[in-house]
Amino acid sequence: MEKNIEISLLFDFYGQLLKEGQQKCVTLYYNDDLSLSEISDQLGITRQGVLDSIKRAEKRLYAFEEKLGLLERFQKTERGLYKIESLAQSLNDRYDKTTVQQIIETAKSLHE
Amino acid sequence: MEKNIEISLLFDFYGQLLKEGQQKCVTLYYNDDLSLSEISDQLGITRQGVLDSIKRAEKRLYAFEEKLGLLERFQKTERGLYKIESLAQSLNDRYDKTTVQQIIETAKSLHE
Repeated sequence: MEKNIEISLLFDFYGQLLKEGQQKCVTLYYNDDLSLSEISDQLGITRQGVLDSIKRAEKRLYAFEEKLGLLERFQKTERGLYKIESLAQSLNDRYDKTTVQQIIETAKSLHE
Repeated sequence: MEKNIEISLLFDFYGQLLKEGQQKCVTLYYNDDLSLSEISDQLGITRQGVLDSIKRAEKRLYAFEEKLGLLERFQKTERGLYKIESLAQSLNDRYDKTTVQQIIETAKSLHE
């Protein structure tokens, strides 16, 4: 099973909605980078139990994002903020009204 | 019962996690601004049933925010974006390196 970076992001958003056992398995697997066998030893459940728990958790995390789309919304804002930062940095080198306007437009496009 | 603006915001974030009946009642009450009696007529359930459904929905919406805090996180970002917009507007009137720096710092503080 390949470790999926998107799961860590989704877990950061929706992890608190998972059952406690699922939260533990996902944290140990994705954040602490333990293997399934190590988690199995640590929690005293079978390796298959750990795998099932992680698989169920992943499915629920994707379902939350499918319904709410908050990670996507957040990532769009992040990209905009990096763009604003880079535009503002360029103003330090050279003042330019078009760049100022781009900052304003980007900020406007990101808030309600 | 006073209509609570925060519920509309929470519903925008977490509404899709509510049961379908709760979603209907909250939408009619908060977004379409119908009275409990009007919703009762429209959905063919008792006024008390509508009230119970809305109360349960509100409780769940608050519980989601208590666990995930995503509305608060987004509101913080919104405030930052308004600040950036206003700082950038002021650059249109007068170029000032400190203002540029404030834009950069604000954008930085809002992304990961």
